[in-house]
Formats: sequence, C-alpha cells, structure tokens
Amino acid sequence: MIVTISREFGSGGRELGKRLSEELEVPCYDSTILKILSEEQGLDPQYLSHISEKSIQASYPLTIGHRFSLAPDYGMDQAVKVAVEQRKVIEGLAARGDCIIIGRCADVILRDRRPFNIFVYANKEAKLERCIRRAPEGERLSPAEMERYMRRIDRDRAQHRAFFTDAKWGAKESYHLCIDTSGVEIRQIVPPLAAYVRTWCAARG
Amino acid sequence: MIVTISREFGSGGRELGKRLSEELEVPCYDSTILKILSEEQGLDPQYLSHISEKSIQASYPLTIGHRFSLAPDYGMDQAVKVAVEQRKVIEGLAARGDCIIIGRCADVILRDRRPFNIFVYANKEAKLERCIRRAPEGERLSPAEMERYMRRIDRDRAQHRAFFTDAKWGAKESYHLCIDTSGVEIRQIVPPLAAYVRTWCAARG
Repeated sequence: MIVTISREFGSGGRELGKRLSEELEVPCYDSTILKILSEEQGLDPQYLSHISEKSIQASYPLTIGHRFSLAPDYGMDQAVKVAVEQRKVIEGLAARGDCIIIGRCADVILRDRRPFNIFVYANKEAKLERCIRRAPEGERLSPAEMERYMRRIDRDRAQHRAFFTDAKWGAKESYHLCIDTSGVEIRQIVPPLAAYVRTWCAARG
Repeated sequence: MIVTISREFGSGGRELGKRLSEELEVPCYDSTILKILSEEQGLDPQYLSHISEKSIQASYPLTIGHRFSLAPDYGMDQAVKVAVEQRKVIEGLAARGDCIIIGRCADVILRDRRPFNIFVYANKEAKLERCIRRAPEGERLSPAEMERYMRRIDRDRAQHRAFFTDAKWGAKESYHLCIDTSGVEIRQIVPPLAAYVRTWCAARG
C-alpha cells in the first residue's frame, strides 16, 4: 500500500497525510526525504530545501531558455541532480514497504508500483483561514500578503511538476481521489478516508 | 443529507449513485426527474429527454449567436422552460428530505442546501470497456465509434452546464470529492464512500 499526497498550499494536505499515516499504521514521509538526502550527500538541508521546492524557473530565472544550448549551468545542473537523488530516496522508501509520501512528484516517480494518489484542495477562504491560524506568532501576514504567498507556492509546485513530469499538477486525471477540505475538520474525515484507501488497494489487487 | 453526483459518461457514476443510495438508505433520482416532469406537464418523455440532455448548442445550432436579438426562438425557449421546470422538481425533491440526485446541475441548483457534491471520472480505457460491456446486444459500437459517442455526451453535458450555471463541469473546485473509478469495482468502493459522506455531512453540521 503506497499512498501519495499532492496538495494545494493551505489545504491541510500535510495534516491529512500525517493523520492517515496514524490511521493506516504506515510511515509518512515529507520533508524527512530531504533530511535523508542531506545526510546521505552531506549537503546543507536549507540549500536542498531551496533547490528542491522552488520551481526551476523561479530559482534560475536568467538561465532557462537563454543559455540552454551553452555550457551546462551550475544551478540548473544542481537542481536536476537533487531531483534525481530525491527520486532514488523515494524509490528506496517505497521499496521498503507500505508508506505515505507527501509531495515531491511521488505519484509519478512511483507510477510502476501503482500507488493510490490523492490530491487535497480547498477554497481560498478555507486555505487563508488555515494559513493565518497556523502562522507562528510574529510571522503573521495580512490576508492579501498570505494570498500572494499561497499562490506563489502553488505556482512553484505546478512549475516544478511540469519541469520534471508529464502529469499536470492538480488535474484530477492524475489522481485517484481529489478531496476538498473546506469547512470540515481533517481529523474527522480521515477514518472513512483510510477505509476507502484500504478498500481501493485491496480491490485493485 | 443531500448528495449530488456529476459524472463522465462511462465512468459508472450512475451505478455509484444507485449503490450509494442503497448504502445510505436514501432515495436516488436520475431520469426519474424527467418522468415526474413529463407526468406533471403532460409532455412526451422522449422529447423532454432530448431537450434536457443535449447541449443547447447541439440542439439549436443555427440560432445561438445568430438570432439572439430577434424574436424568441421556440426551441431555445422550450429548452429554458424545461430547465426551469426541472429545477422546480429538483428543489421539490430536496425539500422532501435526504436524497441523491444524479446529473441535471443539481449541485448548483441546490447550492443553498449545501449538498455534498461528487464528481465521478475514469480513464478512457476503463470508460470504453464499461460502455462496450454494457451496450445491449445488437447495439455494439466499435471502440472508435464508442469513443466519439462518449466524447459527444460529455461535451453536451459540459455545454449544458456552461449554459445554465457558472460552475465548470468536471473542474474539481466545483465538487467536494472527485472519484476515479478506473480499475476498481464500484460495489467495493461504495461502503467506505458512504461512510465518508455520512461523516462529512455530520462534520459540516
């Protein structure tokens, strides 16, 4: 049973993954993947986080499309290298056994293992409310600032996915179940969701 | 508990609705809505079915965009009249109590009752297989013919929705749960789905 979770920023996808992990009693990996990678490769975790989560375009705005045919670009090269290494970590984790993986194009990377792919989304109001509620004291953004920030993160995720895969981020056709979390508590919907995932995985054989 | 189901042709949305209705023990309405309407209005059921399920554009290709400013067009007028009457029947059914309504823009019509809106989809292969398996003896289309037919029905549904509502057909943002039925038996996924719907409706209050 391999479950992947993609999500809009602020939709509660990470919380859903963590709770689903407890309910299904399987490990859940998210930024832990980068931690494993930073330990394996001796790289700075913050650098890894920057290079793997930003969109390629956002990180290297001057090189894409301009110097593609020139000598290999260091930043570009590093981003692809990190993606390749991250892919290996994800494949290794899935090979170990049942698990949930949040983000990182795991649904595409693990396609051959036929994972159950979930996309989590919510309406703008619900996402804003969640983000503002969760922001650490002293880091509160105004609703307008938060909305811009949310949009940027989602755009980065979509661009990152478009660069490394052929599956469109957030298009329902890429997922087995798309879940709107607006107006409900995630802890309440997780138990029946876990039953759905269990049944689907057993039915699919 | 009001549940609406929109679906791609061949995805098994109707079967899912019927089975969910048994599981939740609430009535399920689909083409029965037209039957009620035909009895109420003394109209031919086949005519009603034609006028309500085709896209407006497909039914009246010469009038839209060309004669809009001229005298009211009979066909156009009738289509809108049927949509208005159908809307009243749907509102009446929902007012009676818990139910499941398949198609007919019920998610938009019943918006104020805050229904749980499901969209059912599947990949092309799964839909083709289902449609060909279900076709009556002697009415078998070739896979290519069936694919064209499937696309036409879905296009009609999308256009019908676009004409009568502001919500995009099949866009996940319009639904609370989008379900891919490819590769699984619908009877197997319905029990956990029913639990999810029950939980969501209770959690939403």
